[in-house]
Amino acid sequence: MNEFSVTILGSSAATPTSTRFPSAQVVSHQYRPFLVDCGEGTQMQIRKNKIRFSKINHIFISHTHGDHFFGLIGLISSFNLLGRETDLHIYAPESIKAVLDLQLAVSESQLRYKIQYHFLKFDDKYLLYEDKQLKIYSFPLRHSIPTCGFLFKEKPYPRKIRKEVLKIYDIPDLAFEGIKRGNDFVKENGEIVSNETLTSSGMDQKSYVYCSDTAYFKNISDYLEDVDLLYHECSFMEDMRVTAEAKMHSTTLDAARTANNIGAKKLIIGHFSARYKELEPVLLETKTVFENTILASEDLKINI
Amino acid sequence: MNEFSVTILGSSAATPTSTRFPSAQVVSHQYRPFLVDCGEGTQMQIRKNKIRFSKINHIFISHTHGDHFFGLIGLISSFNLLGRETDLHIYAPESIKAVLDLQLAVSESQLRYKIQYHFLKFDDKYLLYEDKQLKIYSFPLRHSIPTCGFLFKEKPYPRKIRKEVLKIYDIPDLAFEGIKRGNDFVKENGEIVSNETLTSSGMDQKSYVYCSDTAYFKNISDYLEDVDLLYHECSFMEDMRVTAEAKMHSTTLDAARTANNIGAKKLIIGHFSARYKELEPVLLETKTVFENTILASEDLKINI
Repeated sequence: MNEFSVTILGSSAATPTSTRFPSAQVVSHQYRPFLVDCGEGTQMQIRKNKIRFSKINHIFISHTHGDHFFGLIGLISSFNLLGRETDLHIYAPESIKAVLDLQLAVSESQLRYKIQYHFLKFDDKYLLYEDKQLKIYSFPLRHSIPTCGFLFKEKPYPRKIRKEVLKIYDIPDLAFEGIKRGNDFVKENGEIVSNETLTSSGMDQKSYVYCSDTAYFKNISDYLEDVDLLYHECSFMEDMRVTAEAKMHSTTLDAARTANNIGAKKLIIGHFSARYKELEPVLLETKTVFENTILASEDLKINI
Repeated sequence: MNEFSVTILGSSAATPTSTRFPSAQVVSHQYRPFLVDCGEGTQMQIRKNKIRFSKINHIFISHTHGDHFFGLIGLISSFNLLGRETDLHIYAPESIKAVLDLQLAVSESQLRYKIQYHFLKFDDKYLLYEDKQLKIYSFPLRHSIPTCGFLFKEKPYPRKIRKEVLKIYDIPDLAFEGIKRGNDFVKENGEIVSNETLTSSGMDQKSYVYCSDTAYFKNISDYLEDVDLLYHECSFMEDMRVTAEAKMHSTTLDAARTANNIGAKKLIIGHFSARYKELEPVLLETKTVFENTILASEDLKINI
């Protein structure tokens, strides 16, 4: 089983509280951390959670509301002060670049490493990142300014060889790699042994989705299906629905319905309005529509 | 005795740690808070220390290194989200304005209150703020970019009337106010009773000085004298003197000597490099030159 987890660094909506930071989280896959959003204080939260700065090479910013990116300049400045030389990849709305450039200029800082920008598009689902085991996509959300969610999806695992069957057909070791990749086996006499006969399916591909900030919209399911874990914003309870809709945010039940719409197995709700001192009622209301829900909280780590 | 205190919100140098925030502190005089510097996370620290956002009307930024102002945009955004309408006065280098303007534009935020900017000058001591009881001045420090320190100085207290003497001279109540202000009393026969005879001196005027960041320079005493409490940066211990001088920061003994040079009664050292996990050696080294020294730490409140 691959290591695949998310650590919540901030669970608060726009105004942080004394205990809740604005939005940020680290998705880790095979011990490579991907930072998603970077509200004020994220660098302190990264340290608190003992995630090494030097391992963070990819940062995803969903949109340019301050509670999702005001911590970015502090983090990239600290990277610099600590001697970073490795390129940093930032996936973000294009306007982020001007903000970072101006702040670096004003503080007379020159980065000793390079920032590789990958500007987000907001009209469809796009592949942002790919390695041997993982793909990361952006997809459009519905908010008051252009906003993306992010999908982390494992690639298919290699099929597993059924050793007992291979013995029956006397298949040489040399053919194993091809069979794992899905090839059939052709015997000397031309007879074909199908891959389905020789192998069983690999481990399930896991997936994780980050949705913040967004109003409810049903056809988010055009972009997502069979998600193992969904993080969804839940700024308000149902009695604040009018406010939620005006601000293009989600309520408890919006988050729960979206979890159902995309076939999520589990839901974490976060991005709570500072008005909620106690979150138990928020959780209970969400559970009336989607039972397998948990509350985000600072420094909580969840395996996917 | 007037209420006059300083609360440390951040005691770290450029890179914060998991427990130490970058520079920020609140100087309070008669329960009016003045925010001095505003590193990342300041708004969370203000909340933690139960200082009301609505009472903060004056913010002083010493210079534009990020660890002294990256928290400003988050704070003024939160003021806005919480419905502030009162003007906010920011005393800062001029370039701060462009940074805040761009960030507000990028996040499509419009402030519902007005920011009154007061741009710092770096060539002399200047009066920035004055009310009935307090004056706040800037004065130049020596750092790698233009930087100011700040002096908070109480105005002279009214002289105290010596009631037993007033009885002897049979002085009418109507004359009291003038005597408190320093007037002599002229009797009907023209005889003058001097103010010194009639009054004793008022309470001592207290003063507080904030110095961060700066290299050591002796003629800081041109701007400051008889300071009750000095906060001075102390980024490094003596074994790092070469680094300190190259970066135009102070060591333990630089801070201690400055405290002596300006006749400080008490010294708080802060702005510690993240390399110092334990601060006791930093304190002990400083005390070899200036005994009455204490360590800054998050949420520490000191009466002046």
